[in-house]
Amino acid sequence: MSTTLSFEAAGYQAPTWEAISEAHARIAPRIHRTPILTSSSLDALAGARFFFKCENFQKTGSFKIRGASNAILSLTDEQAARGIVTQSSGNHGAAVACAAAWRGVPAYIVMPKNAPKVKVQAIDAYGGKITFCEPKVSSRKETCDRVQAETGAHLVHPYDDDRIIAGQATAAKEFLEEIPDLDAIFAPVSGGGLLSGTCLGAKGIRKDIRIIGCEPARADDAYRSLTTGTLESLESSDTIADGLRASLSPRTFAILRRYVDRVLLVSEEEIISTARLVWERMKIIIEPSSSVALAPLLKPDVVQSLNLPSRADGQVPKLGVIFSGGNVDLNALPWLS
Amino acid sequence: MSTTLSFEAAGYQAPTWEAISEAHARIAPRIHRTPILTSSSLDALAGARFFFKCENFQKTGSFKIRGASNAILSLTDEQAARGIVTQSSGNHGAAVACAAAWRGVPAYIVMPKNAPKVKVQAIDAYGGKITFCEPKVSSRKETCDRVQAETGAHLVHPYDDDRIIAGQATAAKEFLEEIPDLDAIFAPVSGGGLLSGTCLGAKGIRKDIRIIGCEPARADDAYRSLTTGTLESLESSDTIADGLRASLSPRTFAILRRYVDRVLLVSEEEIISTARLVWERMKIIIEPSSSVALAPLLKPDVVQSLNLPSRADGQVPKLGVIFSGGNVDLNALPWLS
Repeated sequence: MSTTLSFEAAGYQAPTWEAISEAHARIAPRIHRTPILTSSSLDALAGARFFFKCENFQKTGSFKIRGASNAILSLTDEQAARGIVTQSSGNHGAAVACAAAWRGVPAYIVMPKNAPKVKVQAIDAYGGKITFCEPKVSSRKETCDRVQAETGAHLVHPYDDDRIIAGQATAAKEFLEEIPDLDAIFAPVSGGGLLSGTCLGAKGIRKDIRIIGCEPARADDAYRSLTTGTLESLESSDTIADGLRASLSPRTFAILRRYVDRVLLVSEEEIISTARLVWERMKIIIEPSSSVALAPLLKPDVVQSLNLPSRADGQVPKLGVIFSGGNVDLNALPWLS
Repeated sequence: MSTTLSFEAAGYQAPTWEAISEAHARIAPRIHRTPILTSSSLDALAGARFFFKCENFQKTGSFKIRGASNAILSLTDEQAARGIVTQSSGNHGAAVACAAAWRGVPAYIVMPKNAPKVKVQAIDAYGGKITFCEPKVSSRKETCDRVQAETGAHLVHPYDDDRIIAGQATAAKEFLEEIPDLDAIFAPVSGGGLLSGTCLGAKGIRKDIRIIGCEPARADDAYRSLTTGTLESLESSDTIADGLRASLSPRTFAILRRYVDRVLLVSEEEIISTARLVWERMKIIIEPSSSVALAPLLKPDVVQSLNLPSRADGQVPKLGVIFSGGNVDLNALPWLS
């Protein structure tokens, strides 16, 4: 708790609307404005109208390119010259490798040795230089510090960085630009970069929109932190949602405790069955981390329990769900292992 | 050959542009106007600009609902009263079951006993009544005739029917309405309903567009028929492209020999590797029958060998590919079996 209070007490200001708009202008020529899909059969299951922001179709297969490209494209040539270093369970690493290649500089990626092979291969394909570490928060940080000291590369942390948060906020900005009357947006939470960006990007347009984080019960640090008011962390997690094994930082916690409305937890079984349902019904490939943001809404009575304000049009709620990524090992589907 | 000549000699007139426009107006309120996706990484592999008409996102998971709903919604109440009967390897059966449910009448579906389980389940979910037969053209027809005799249901053949062809033609119509300067459209060919509809729907808008059929080498009756000028048929086929195991009819052969520009063959390995490539790169689920229409274009020099006219804009060719469906058994992926 002391860390967070000192962070807030130090006068931390989250990225402004101006910073988010600048990020959007900076990255828009390079990234996809991803489509927003609907599914009448999923609507019928939940008694809601869903809108899915498909970041699984984004460059590098996840939303992570938004933050990584914002950070890397905003560097001076001098700052970028010795390359970029980061730690990542996979998608942020691929995004950094891709954006570093756009800048023509090396990318040094520290990743846990249990990261999915397909994510390792993607980083490799973008030319990233990988160093493996133990799948623990402490080992990630130590290894990253060491690589940074050895190379002199510029650190682009996966979420504890305002440039990253401003970049991730552009997904929610696009979402509300296209569907202005969403009642709530649901996003997965891990380190909190996407969720805090979603808060800032969405509430910057519509103060009254609800922002709800969704988290694996096996990696429930955000839920516990926001419930207790104390920043808690995971030493490790083995959730199938391999993109959601990190913990909040003081920075993202400060934003979330101010802006996020609620965090919902889901079991491993719910994550897997929801991913499969989306593949079957929508014919799109999402990774388990994506299905975390939909899974809680398919349980009986959850949508009603959110107590969303009644809509002026008298219709069922319009719920925005961010599908964060689509990088799955097609040789090892979650429901076959 | 005699069958076909007599068919043509009998003065057969393929569905007119008016019939296609009427079909489109009839079915548009019920079906999806499917999105057209692009992929820069697949473009780079082929040296072309691809546009993918995503009928895998269509109602019932395939283009088949276009023809089936056109046929079934155009019936009088009296014609529809005793239900609909058809034979299908799966997707047409689901489409007939769905459209019959819209009409509130029963659907009797004859399907080969080797049809994928997921396709059987889909027909069941739409309330279709299934009769299994041997996986041979002759057994399909005999069983279908018997069920028709027993029920008095109205036959909606999967492709040997002008109402079906006019319905399938609406996919190409939408394609060219959105991307008017495509140089060629590629569609899979089995019984020829989609391909002959594609010819009529596309050449009705732009006479000079090339229409190219793509067929598994293991089910190459269209290729052989169009090469020899004689209607040839398969007694059975076990291609992984389970939607492409039927043979042309005299009707579809008459249309194809007049309008189709070429048929390209692909191996089983190419069908599977292309499906996987699309899943990985585009994050969408297509069934093997869909990947048949893309697979030939990823082989070296095939695009150049098509001798497409140079474009006025000096750019590489704009190639339209119809992804026909996305119904796959997620427990039995082609590359894992």
